[in-house]
This record gives sequence, C-alpha cells and structure tokens, in this order.
Amino acid sequence: SSLSHINSRGEASMVDVSEKTSTVRVATAEAFVTMSQETLSLIELGDHAKGDVLATARIAGIQAAKQTPQLIPLCHPLMLSKVQVDFELQPEQSRVRIQSLCKLTGQTGVEMEALTAVSVAALTLFDMCKAVDKSMVIQGIQVMSKQGGKSGDWSRD
Amino acid sequence: SSLSHINSRGEASMVDVSEKTSTVRVATAEAFVTMSQETLSLIELGDHAKGDVLATARIAGIQAAKQTPQLIPLCHPLMLSKVQVDFELQPEQSRVRIQSLCKLTGQTGVEMEALTAVSVAALTLFDMCKAVDKSMVIQGIQVMSKQGGKSGDWSRD
Amino acid sequence: SSLSHINSRGEASMVDVSEKTSTVRVATAEAFVTMSQETLSLIELGDHAKGDVLATARIAGIQAAKQTPQLIPLCHPLMLSKVQVDFELQPEQSRVRIQSLCKLTGQTGVEMEALTAVSVAALTLFDMCKAVDKSMVIQGIQVMSKQGGKSGDWSRD
Amino acid sequence: SSLSHINSRGEASMVDVSEKTSTVRVATAEAFVTMSQETLSLIELGDHAKGDVLATARIAGIQAAKQTPQLIPLCHPLMLSKVQVDFELQPEQSRVRIQSLCKLTGQTGVEMEALTAVSVAALTLFDMCKAVDKSMVIQGIQVMSKQGGKSGDWSRD
Amino acid sequence: SSLSHINSRGEASMVDVSEKTSTVRVATAEAFVTMSQETLSLIELGDHAKGDVLATARIAGIQAAKQTPQLIPLCHPLMLSKVQVDFELQPEQSRVRIQSLCKLTGQTGVEMEALTAVSVAALTLFDMCKAVDKSMVIQGIQVMSKQGGKSGDWSRD
Amino acid sequence: SSLSHINSRGEASMVDVSEKTSTVRVATAEAFVTMSQETLSLIELGDHAKGDVLATARIAGIQAAKQTPQLIPLCHPLMLSKVQVDFELQPEQSRVRIQSLCKLTGQTGVEMEALTAVSVAALTLFDMCKAVDKSMVIQGIQVMSKQGGKSGDWSRD
Repeated sequence: SSLSHINSRGEASMVDVSEKTSTVRVATAEAFVTMSQETLSLIELGDHAKGDVLATARIAGIQAAKQTPQLIPLCHPLMLSKVQVDFELQPEQSRVRIQSLCKLTGQTGVEMEALTAVSVAALTLFDMCKAVDKSMVIQGIQVMSKQGGKSGDWSRD
Repeated sequence: SSLSHINSRGEASMVDVSEKTSTVRVATAEAFVTMSQETLSLIELGDHAKGDVLATARIAGIQAAKQTPQLIPLCHPLMLSKVQVDFELQPEQSRVRIQSLCKLTGQTGVEMEALTAVSVAALTLFDMCKAVDKSMVIQGIQVMSKQGGKSGDWSRD
Repeated sequence: SSLSHINSRGEASMVDVSEKTSTVRVATAEAFVTMSQETLSLIELGDHAKGDVLATARIAGIQAAKQTPQLIPLCHPLMLSKVQVDFELQPEQSRVRIQSLCKLTGQTGVEMEALTAVSVAALTLFDMCKAVDKSMVIQGIQVMSKQGGKSGDWSRD
Repeated sequence: SSLSHINSRGEASMVDVSEKTSTVRVATAEAFVTMSQETLSLIELGDHAKGDVLATARIAGIQAAKQTPQLIPLCHPLMLSKVQVDFELQPEQSRVRIQSLCKLTGQTGVEMEALTAVSVAALTLFDMCKAVDKSMVIQGIQVMSKQGGKSGDWSRD
Repeated sequence: SSLSHINSRGEASMVDVSEKTSTVRVATAEAFVTMSQETLSLIELGDHAKGDVLATARIAGIQAAKQTPQLIPLCHPLMLSKVQVDFELQPEQSRVRIQSLCKLTGQTGVEMEALTAVSVAALTLFDMCKAVDKSMVIQGIQVMSKQGGKSGDWSRD
Repeated sequence: SSLSHINSRGEASMVDVSEKTSTVRVATAEAFVTMSQETLSLIELGDHAKGDVLATARIAGIQAAKQTPQLIPLCHPLMLSKVQVDFELQPEQSRVRIQSLCKLTGQTGVEMEALTAVSVAALTLFDMCKAVDKSMVIQGIQVMSKQGGKSGDWSRD
C-alpha cells in the first residue's frame, strides 16, 4: 500500500492510465456549510434571491468540476459527460447540504471532480453570505460513492 | 443586514469597490484533512516523499489563491502580494492541519483567497492519498483572522 | 488616424499604457438574442426556470468580463471594480435585451470587458435554448457609453 | 419541448451525454462586424497590416473555440479535431464577414464552439479598430449548419 | 513539404485530425538550465530545499503540459494519460538537465506537450533562482524521441 | 545569498512584495529557434505565410506573458502595461531570433513575463514548423536587460 502519485524516488508523477479500461464511471460527493440561523434565512428569503444565491453556487460548482485538472496538479484531463450540483437547506442543523454527481466514460475515476464541485460551490455560498456572517464553516467534504473502474463500486455506509 | 452580492431585485452582482480605500489587507484561513493513521504515516514516511506530497499540495494551494476570481463568480480580480500555505501533521487527531495567509494592498478583503488556498491544498492532499484511503474527510474550512479594510480587524476566538 | 494595436511595421502589439492617468472608467454595452415567441415564453415560464436561465447567463457574462485579457489578445490585464449584467425580456420584438456595465480605476478603458460580458451572456442564453430553437440570432452587440480617460465621455445617441 | 439544461425543478444542470453515440460532428457559424468605410479600408490597407489584424482575430477565435466549456457554464468539455476561422471584407455592406467551422468525433454537437469562435474573432476585430471607430456593431451571430448526431443534419436556408 | 498549420492562402488553421487513427503516442523532450556553480549548489544544499525547488518546477511542468492547447494556438485539445518530469543536477557542466515524457491514446502526437513541460519547468527553476543569478540561460529545448502515429517512431541520435 | 522563494524551512513561498515601491519596471528577453535552412525559407516564403506564422507566434507570446502567474507557481499576479514580441530571421545562423519587452508600473520585476513571452513564441514557431523539421532546437532563452526596482538597472554585456 503506497501513495500512487509518488514514485519510488519520492517524486510527484501523473500516473499512467493508458492501459486502464474505458468504462462508465460515476462519483458522488457532499459538503456542508454551517452558518447562523439568520444567514440561512436570508438564503431562504424570497424565491428570486434564493434562486440567484443557489444558482450562482451551482454554476460555480459545475464550472469548477470541469477545471479540476487545472486545479489539482496530478489529476488527468478528462471529459465529464455529466455534472450535477444540488443544495438542501437544513434549518434544524443550521446548514446547507451540497451534493454533487460527476460521470464520464473514461480511464480514470471522477472522485476529485465531484469533491471539487462541492468545495467550490461551498466557497461560493460562503462568498455570497460573508458580509453578514464571517463565522461560517465548511464541513464534511467527502466522497459518498463511486462506481465503475477496476476497484469496483464503493459507498460510504 | 443583507447579502451583498444580491441586488434589490434578487440578482447576482459584483459589488462596486471603486470607492473603497486601498489599504493593506491580510486574511488567514485553515482546513483539516482527517485520515487513517496508516495514511498519515505514509505522508510522514521519509523526507523526500513528505517533501513532494506536501510541496505539491502547497503549490496547488498557492496557485488556487491566484485563481480565486476565476473560481468564485462574484470575487473581484486582485493582485495578491503574498500567499503562504503551511501544513502540520497532527498524528494524535489523525489529521493534517492546513493554514494559509494571503495579503494585498487593495480595495477588497482576501478571505476568499485564503479559503480557496486551504481548500485546494486539502483537495490535492486528498488526491495524493486517495489510492490508499477513500474515506478521508476535509473538515473545518474557515477564516481565522482578517486585518485591514473598513470593517476593521477580526479574529475567530 | 490608424489602428492602435498595429505598429508601423504592421505587427500586432500591446500598446503602452504606463503613461496614462489612472482614472475611474465606466463602459456600458448591449446585445440582443432574437428567438421565437415559443422559446421566449419558455424562459418566462415560472419563476425558478427563469431564475436559473437568466442567472446562469448573468454569471457567465460576469465571469467572461473578468477573463477578457485572456480572450482578446491585445487587451491589457486589469482589475474590474464592478461588473453588472441585466436582462430584459422584450416579447413584442421577440427577443431578450442584455446590458452590461463595467467599471474600474485604471489606465485603460473597459469597453472590451463590457462587450465581452454581453457577448458571453448572449452565447449562454443561446446554449440554454438551442435544444428548442436552433435559429436564434445574436444581434446588435455594441458599446452604449464610455466615461473617463483622456478621450472623454461618449455615448451612442 | 423544454429547455434541456434546466431540470424539472428549474435548476441548471449539465445534461448526461454518456449514452449518446460518438459520431463525427461539424458545425458552421457566422458573424458580421459593421464599421465605417474608413475603418474597413484601414484593415485592407497594406498586406502586412491586414495580415496581422485578421491573423490576430483568427487566432483569438480558434483559441476561444477551445475554451468554450470554460466560458459557457453548461457546455461539455470536448476535444475539437478541427477549427477554422475565415474573414471576408465586404466593402459594399461596409462590414467584415466572419465564418467558422468546428469539427470533432464525439458525443455532443459543436454549435457553441463555432459560435464562440466567430464571437471572439469579432470582439478582437472590434478591439483592434476601436481607437478609430467606437460605433462598430457586431451583427448576425448565428449557426449556419450542423451535421452529425441524433437530430441529423440541419442548415439555415 | 510545407507548413501544416498554414493553409494554401497563407492563413493559420488547426488541421483536421478526425481521420487519424487513435494510437498510443509517446514523446520525450529535454532542456537545460545553465547557471553558476554557486546557484547550482544552493539547489543541492539540504534535502528539503532541493525537494521544494525541484518539486515546484516539476509540478509547474506537469501543469503546463496539460495547458499546452491553451498556450500554443494551433495545438489540439487532448487528454494526456501520463506526464513525467525529471531533473538531473550536472555540476560538471554547471547546469540542471530536465527531461519530460508525455503519453496519450489519441489522434495527435504529444511533442508540444513534452516541450512545454520542460520549458515551463525550466522557467520555474529560473524564477526560483533569479534572486541570486540573473545570468542563467535556458538551453537545448528539443524533442528527444517520438513513438506512435503514422509517421512512425523517431529519435534524435 | 539564498533562494528567495524558499523559506528557512526549505518550503516554497510567494514572497511578500507589499512593502516594495511601485515603480516603472521594464525587462527584455531573447530566445532563438535553430532550424534547417529549408524550414527557415518556408517561413520567409511569401508575405502572407510569413505574416501568419510570425503573427501566430507573436500573439501566443503576448498571451503567455499575461498568463505568467498561472504558469510559474511563485510569480505574483501583475498588470502588464505593455508587451512586445519581435522576430528576426537570421539565415546565416539558420535561426529565428525572438525578442520581448515587458513593462509595468508595480511592485515586482517583469523578467519572468519577458522570458515566458519568448519561450511560448518559440514553442509556437516550433509547433508550426514541426511537420517539416522535428530537429529544431530552442536555444539561449535569457534576460537581456532589466530596469526599475530596488536592485537597479542591469543588462547582459
């Protein structure tokens, strides 16, 4: 068991995926933005405002998924066939839940794309609310499930 | 108290900062990557490997800070005068702590740049360790302190 | 009277603006997307759908304004202090009107940024409606007004 | 008939193309830059100057076609196998006609790439002539033809 | 024998590769950074420093290889399946040797990606040492070998 | 004397320039592309072809100068006020000479921008000629002069 992106001399390297089978691969991820009840209610307030706050964060997350290989140095360039970003306001926990799904037919998994989508959506939500609440925290960024590829299906239970 | 990036019609808008004073502004942020003890020890193992794993994540974080206005739709373009990203292995909590500091002389704060730096550094660390540990979680992304600008100094206590 | 970006040998060149005064500069631009009545009514239909169609085009326009120096080879890098993109549905002319305003304190005008914002917002609107209407046409992309700088204020009358 | 990029909840989403057949797809688009006779003759004047003005706009158009997924939020990343941008000076109409052709073997059409190519080529032409003519207008950006894919061939008549 | 990226009218054009066979293609390239003995020894001095200087240049080279189609106007977008950048300190020649290997399964060769990787790695090394040595020179950027594709295997002898 | 981008713990870091004086700074750089006489004459052959080959390389170099902070990890973002790229065919040495000049009013020097401009212009020239000549070599990338800033004027003699 060793770090795949580090070669035997301890140097960073983009691993060779040219021998991997091209299969349909799906990954889902989630993140939470914890905020005050007051801030959360500003997002909820009014259909238009909510539309634009969440729509902006959604577009930012989708765009970021496509830019993953530019952001994460050892990620392979790939051609996502689908990206989806969803939000759920959870007033009882005083937070917003963000979920993403990324999909492609290719030689590498798309966990990093799914994680990047929720992370940048969370950062964008943070940006849009920071004038009223500097104390927000982004929590629980993690892969939820993964399908396709040699290592098979996996889901957090 | 309202969302600064949403105008009175509920639409997203990049706020006008042309009247703000240009001052020295600093922001710091932190994030954690929680992982298994085994994964953490792989990062620690050997000077070179550690060098390249953390160096790669550091470079990714610094580069991401500079790309913040491309990632976060309503962030202003700005010219960072300093970006620093630091890592601390915390074996007792089975995690890596990531801290960033961003600085500029300008008209807008740099919290989003500091948050983006730690987020992308955390995602890069995740990427480099995911072959051995899919269950890692990125936690506690938050602004730690902020100096300069009209709203004055602020720090999480 | 000659082309400012072409030197005396007929070669492209980014003109020297280092001697220009740094002043507040504003530019506005507009564009139209002409479409069938049926397509236009799909954009209008329901608050949410409208919100997300126009919000997506707005974000795309704002982001594109910031990327102008990467898109237009001889544009100077600059730091926009404000970008605004507005939409007006004009059912009588069977079209959407898009307007932008860009502002900065600097040494170069921001007409190209304002034009890029409306152009990419129009292209995004096109993309979101093309499944139902391939015949849309983007029309009338032009600068509406310009303030600041040596050449003084100007507006299309 | 509905907007493909908006789901049933009215939210933006990048549609799933993973089940689509990979075929050769071609799209052509056009745009016009209307300008004064004096400006048009400056572009025509002399082989070198003309070369560089049009060559700069051509390169900008080709580069922009490749950046389409970064500019248009819900466009899929794709690998263009050919991009061509052509110019025709039309002194009788006092304008420049710009045409593009984009081609790939893949799962999605390339209309947006063809439209983005002519749009950015037109903006670049505008940028290079704006010192002598602020009143130019970009007109008639539209898809001219489309081949390949399930919806079959289409051309504007 | 003629320039492939220039059509019969002398205009730049991205050549059509859609008829080319998709095969495994590999290219290697090298570059040298010549510097003073004193500068070279600063890179060598201490494991950590060396790690970070070379790790930073390596990451920059890998990232640049992925950005080649954005940098070189007529390069096709492509999906690299492997990028590797290696450094060798050559104290006798008072220089650092940089080598790269790029690989993909696709319709175009990857020489430009391999050349871009060594060039940007060399520029990054230059940047990190320029405070102590402005006189460094980057030398001998060239393709070393090329495998796959219609033109067959080739290597500099 | 030590490496400015490496801190006392041997880690990469973007140095703080916020205390530096903002002055006019200029840097010039050069590079050579050595090629066969036959290849060189193809560039020379005919005004149009030459126009587009060199115009493409010039635009690529100018664009790359603006992207330097994205390419070179520890470079500061900055706002170039002028970029110029020139070519000189040197048939006696069977090579093309490339020169660049970058200028800004700011807190950091622009050597890296000037070097990046000539490097990417050279790579683009290589790309456009590689179908007829795989053996070209890029040579002698170096800073020629530097003005402004605390360290004063400097030129290679």
